[in-house]
Amino acid sequence: MAHDIRPKIALAMGDPCGISPELTAHLMASPAIREAMHLIVIGDVRVLSDGADIAKVAPTFEAVQTVDAIPQRAENHLFVDLGTLDPATITRGSASQAGGPFALANFRAALDLAKSGRVSAVTFTPFNKAAMRMADPAYDDEISFVARACGTTAPASEFNILDGLWNARVTSHIALKDVAERITTEAVLRGLQLTDASMRQAGYSTPRIALAALNPHGGDNGNFGREEIDILEPAVAAAKRGGLAVEGPFPADTVFVRAKAGQFDAVLTLYHDQGQIAMKLMGFDRGVTLLGGFPFPICTPAHGTAYEIAGKGIANTGAACAALLLAARLASHRARAAT
Amino acid sequence: MAHDIRPKIALAMGDPCGISPELTAHLMASPAIREAMHLIVIGDVRVLSDGADIAKVAPTFEAVQTVDAIPQRAENHLFVDLGTLDPATITRGSASQAGGPFALANFRAALDLAKSGRVSAVTFTPFNKAAMRMADPAYDDEISFVARACGTTAPASEFNILDGLWNARVTSHIALKDVAERITTEAVLRGLQLTDASMRQAGYSTPRIALAALNPHGGDNGNFGREEIDILEPAVAAAKRGGLAVEGPFPADTVFVRAKAGQFDAVLTLYHDQGQIAMKLMGFDRGVTLLGGFPFPICTPAHGTAYEIAGKGIANTGAACAALLLAARLASHRARAAT
Repeated sequence: MAHDIRPKIALAMGDPCGISPELTAHLMASPAIREAMHLIVIGDVRVLSDGADIAKVAPTFEAVQTVDAIPQRAENHLFVDLGTLDPATITRGSASQAGGPFALANFRAALDLAKSGRVSAVTFTPFNKAAMRMADPAYDDEISFVARACGTTAPASEFNILDGLWNARVTSHIALKDVAERITTEAVLRGLQLTDASMRQAGYSTPRIALAALNPHGGDNGNFGREEIDILEPAVAAAKRGGLAVEGPFPADTVFVRAKAGQFDAVLTLYHDQGQIAMKLMGFDRGVTLLGGFPFPICTPAHGTAYEIAGKGIANTGAACAALLLAARLASHRARAAT
Repeated sequence: MAHDIRPKIALAMGDPCGISPELTAHLMASPAIREAMHLIVIGDVRVLSDGADIAKVAPTFEAVQTVDAIPQRAENHLFVDLGTLDPATITRGSASQAGGPFALANFRAALDLAKSGRVSAVTFTPFNKAAMRMADPAYDDEISFVARACGTTAPASEFNILDGLWNARVTSHIALKDVAERITTEAVLRGLQLTDASMRQAGYSTPRIALAALNPHGGDNGNFGREEIDILEPAVAAAKRGGLAVEGPFPADTVFVRAKAGQFDAVLTLYHDQGQIAMKLMGFDRGVTLLGGFPFPICTPAHGTAYEIAGKGIANTGAACAALLLAARLASHRARAAT
């Protein structure tokens, strides 16, 4: 290649007991992925080899032993073999104590590569949260782990993306009883701005964002809940004044029907299940998760480790491919915007 | 007909400014409806006539002026012409003050017919809640109106039914901030029992009911919310001891994916949008609403008045047909169970 303009994307191998090994092998062997990006995969070559056997693919790559040994230029995908996990020591199909440190080390190395500018985006195959906690008791979720790893306190959010529809949320892993008090005009406005900014970075010129209401029927003019009137409408008005294409608040039980019909590019929801019920129903296995608000994009398939089908060679690779392609698109768009 | 075994079903004409007139005409002219039931329709024949013109159908029926004039036996559908609304006095396409008293009088008359045993079930075409409130400031929703009209205080619930999947909820039209404190083991157990009983009345021998969790990821073992452990699990255990086929609580964002795949016959949700987001996304226009827990079944299409397409003759009649057929099936099943 005379001049390789493909973005460099780090791929951290995730939980080794699930479908991560076979997914990684698939991704490394995929012509579509190879055309779109240059992968720097981090894991253990023995785990990858098992995955290639399961997936019945033969990925080609250059292997190095440390991240410092990564060459400046390489024709082929690179595999950083940290040598941290002998697959003979784990059991496929359930969370294992050994799986946590393996995935966590890979993820840390990938984040380090991005922080130092050696890759433009980070991706990873699914983690198991229980295994991650065995490795790091402070591990809460990816957002807070990355914030600590990067030393950032800027607003960050998880986006779920399915068939071009984006979904972000104002609150996430908190009890339902605590949701209402966390919904403030400032928090909602921040969510709208972060959604807008993240989508512009992905190439949307003016993303059309719908805000979901908190109460049934949007509170029915204050008959059951006043948050729409007192909190959400002012947030939408402020966002509009700032030039954002925001509409709502709309009753949560019809906003996704409208979004599915193409009326919006994104829905900002107020609590975890409000968006997840809809997104999972629309396409459980096809969605992509983007961690937005960090100095570089971080993407992963929305599905989990899929222990129940691990090792069978039947894992659907669509969401993982989509996650990597989104990361590459975001990286390329940022590079163009920076020049 | 030598011996007419068709159940008698009352059909109250709903909001006259929406698609109710054309729906009513369609239903009265439908051969499938005629085969399954004997309709006693309540409204104004001038409104019906307008609807028949829009729908381009010519329903045949016997007209009477009062409910007391309804004959014991009749070959044809009956139309009780209360003469309460001249369609020239209303405007199609928006809520009108005159529409409320019309729909309310029809609904009251239909409920009276059922209370006195002259019909076995009540159905109605869509109401507009704002118009109903103009006619009766105490009108809250159908459940509370029927409870007052029937003088009952027994547990009652709205069921949404779509493609054979039933959904009921423990709380409904209340602010989200008030949901958690209303979720008690007693309320959930009552909801499970009412769902089970209503489905048995509809012909299910052992309905498989899933209970949705309140918190994201079902509380993640108490990490964000303890209601699953302290309230929901005891309710499921009590229901199982009572012989019900109940499972859960399951995270709300996957329970509908599983139900859609046929793993359950019903999902009991804990708040309005939890079920409605899923049910509307699965089939906005096709669902049926059943008011269960009353001495007789009450069914209506799940969609609304559809002001935006009123008078255009393009209204989809599927959900209204399904509502009437469900009412007839429930009525027949009750009649068989009583003999």
